[in-house]
Amino acid sequence: MIKTRAAVAMAPGKPLEIMDVNLDGPKAGEVLVEIKATGLCHTDEFTRSGDDPEGIFPAILGHEGAGVVIEVGEGVKSLKPGDHVIPLYTPECRECDYCLNPKTNLCQAIRATQGQGLLPDGTTRFSLEDGTPIHHYMGCSTFANHTVVPEIALAKIRQDAPFDKVCYIGCGVTTGIGAVINTAKVEIGSTAIVFGLGGIGLNVIQGLRLAGADQIVGVDLNPGKVEMAEKFGMTDFVNPSEVTGDLVAHLVELTGGGADYTFDATGNVNVMRTALEAAHKGWGESIIIGVAPAGAEISTRPFQLVTGRSWRGTAFGGASGRTDVPKIVDWYMDGKIEIDPMITHKLTLDQINEGFELMHAGKSIRAVVEF
Amino acid sequence: MIKTRAAVAMAPGKPLEIMDVNLDGPKAGEVLVEIKATGLCHTDEFTRSGDDPEGIFPAILGHEGAGVVIEVGEGVKSLKPGDHVIPLYTPECRECDYCLNPKTNLCQAIRATQGQGLLPDGTTRFSLEDGTPIHHYMGCSTFANHTVVPEIALAKIRQDAPFDKVCYIGCGVTTGIGAVINTAKVEIGSTAIVFGLGGIGLNVIQGLRLAGADQIVGVDLNPGKVEMAEKFGMTDFVNPSEVTGDLVAHLVELTGGGADYTFDATGNVNVMRTALEAAHKGWGESIIIGVAPAGAEISTRPFQLVTGRSWRGTAFGGASGRTDVPKIVDWYMDGKIEIDPMITHKLTLDQINEGFELMHAGKSIRAVVEF
Repeated sequence: MIKTRAAVAMAPGKPLEIMDVNLDGPKAGEVLVEIKATGLCHTDEFTRSGDDPEGIFPAILGHEGAGVVIEVGEGVKSLKPGDHVIPLYTPECRECDYCLNPKTNLCQAIRATQGQGLLPDGTTRFSLEDGTPIHHYMGCSTFANHTVVPEIALAKIRQDAPFDKVCYIGCGVTTGIGAVINTAKVEIGSTAIVFGLGGIGLNVIQGLRLAGADQIVGVDLNPGKVEMAEKFGMTDFVNPSEVTGDLVAHLVELTGGGADYTFDATGNVNVMRTALEAAHKGWGESIIIGVAPAGAEISTRPFQLVTGRSWRGTAFGGASGRTDVPKIVDWYMDGKIEIDPMITHKLTLDQINEGFELMHAGKSIRAVVEF
Repeated sequence: MIKTRAAVAMAPGKPLEIMDVNLDGPKAGEVLVEIKATGLCHTDEFTRSGDDPEGIFPAILGHEGAGVVIEVGEGVKSLKPGDHVIPLYTPECRECDYCLNPKTNLCQAIRATQGQGLLPDGTTRFSLEDGTPIHHYMGCSTFANHTVVPEIALAKIRQDAPFDKVCYIGCGVTTGIGAVINTAKVEIGSTAIVFGLGGIGLNVIQGLRLAGADQIVGVDLNPGKVEMAEKFGMTDFVNPSEVTGDLVAHLVELTGGGADYTFDATGNVNVMRTALEAAHKGWGESIIIGVAPAGAEISTRPFQLVTGRSWRGTAFGGASGRTDVPKIVDWYMDGKIEIDPMITHKLTLDQINEGFELMHAGKSIRAVVEF
């Protein structure tokens, strides 16, 4: 057992508490990782705030990290101490029915325990000083200087990639780019609309640029997002508050009949409907990326689908993490995609709660904690 | 101008009136067809009843016919008198953006006028004895012994195919089979659930058999549908009224995690939701075929899509009629698909209103009027 520094979510709605916690060593099939950097994602905040009905406390949140392997448990073959890794909240066992089906990335190997905040053997490795177990979060718990993660939930990446940038590939970058290339499979010359120009939306936009889209329309209520979005490839901006009349009609007009692909990166179910209805009749596909509030529902007239639109969703950008994440790290290192401008704030672990404040104030795209 | 015998919908909600009407000859790009047989579809009844908010009266309904070319208008090159044809409510001009896009069959060449009950030049060919124009319907108006149809809305079929059977390929057969092979593109070995075992549902089932599906579950409240559905390939039957507990959970259990493909052939928006949610997590696709009541909306939690289900729709089975309908006629003539058992009633034009009564009583799969 070691001691490590962590930000602990002790109860819903409370600020994270920075403290030393106990961490047991890796069991069979597990790996001890020293986290070097971690991003703060809206999903962490969704759970911290208490809005997540499946939130479990106390827990160590964080699921967008990068680090170095310190020790491997029994039977671990694909990793060794010193390897650089990105933890995966969607693992890739390469053996379950889901991993063996090329249509999905939703590996189910450890899903039941992961959803309960436990490692696959049904226990936690983290505990408070008094011995109280601390739950894991999304199988990652990157808001700690050290964490234990199953081997199948670690992508091995190249050693020269900077942790404070590629940690973002653990969630936001892969989710946005993957929605374009894995889920929608956007073709060169396509038209697209992206709703929400936050961290995910910007990565959708650069995914569209990478895929060769001709027209990339960004939609956001905040005109302050325009400059950055244009830098990543946005060709047209629409502020719904400045559109007189029906937003769908405006977008259909702007895209010459509707977009080939539309993406919701807001989590707002009304926006999801607009995104569907702004897709082109006959062939438009609308992809839901955002996470909606508990209980919220999407709706539309079935005529929208019967006339050829399709409504789909994506989780972790449809990426099979151990296979795809190392490739995305390469793309970053080769300059095919950009990450640096999106990392707008660097924090220490002690400042982590300030990161959530920046998020709420709309001041950050991504705040990253470096250890 | 000729006189022809027709069943005219004079006003919403009234029985059709059998009478002689005037029919002008074909203009440029049009074809005069002698209708030999026509099926009665729920969509005709939807308009006749007055429930269709876009219904226009007086009109000659009917869109599921087969017949013989009598005369062609100026410039018609692909057809000549004596050719056997099936009118297409979804035309195939092979020149518009939709026809040139392999993702859709929704040719837009004559859509605006067709929706207004007119031929492409903005006028009608039919009129009452007093000269009042009678509207066309879905570009076909097969409830008349003769009709005028644009060349691009006629599929040329082989001469030895029986009119009283292949007329059904003009709508129901192609819609059901096409939903499977064109829209869903079902793979050999798939599992599927079909909601609604009426005329469309039975054709979905035989489409699934043709596509090599392993498990074909039929869902209907009427156990009287079982025998016929099994004949067409249904492997499992579920009567929702006999399921204790949640229907989705029951279907997910029965299909080993949800079906690869589900099809709604009911037009009921609650059933459409059940169909989506009974699709397999990760890769299940749900296809809406049924036409919902005006204003009805589908809804679900976006989580259903984010976890890998997709929601789609189909019109005319995704078929490009001039290309695909002749092939389906061949499949029927070669015994690859069956139609005869589904033609449960034969009527004369004078008996056409009895056909709608049979439909409401659930006694017919398809009633066909022979001229």
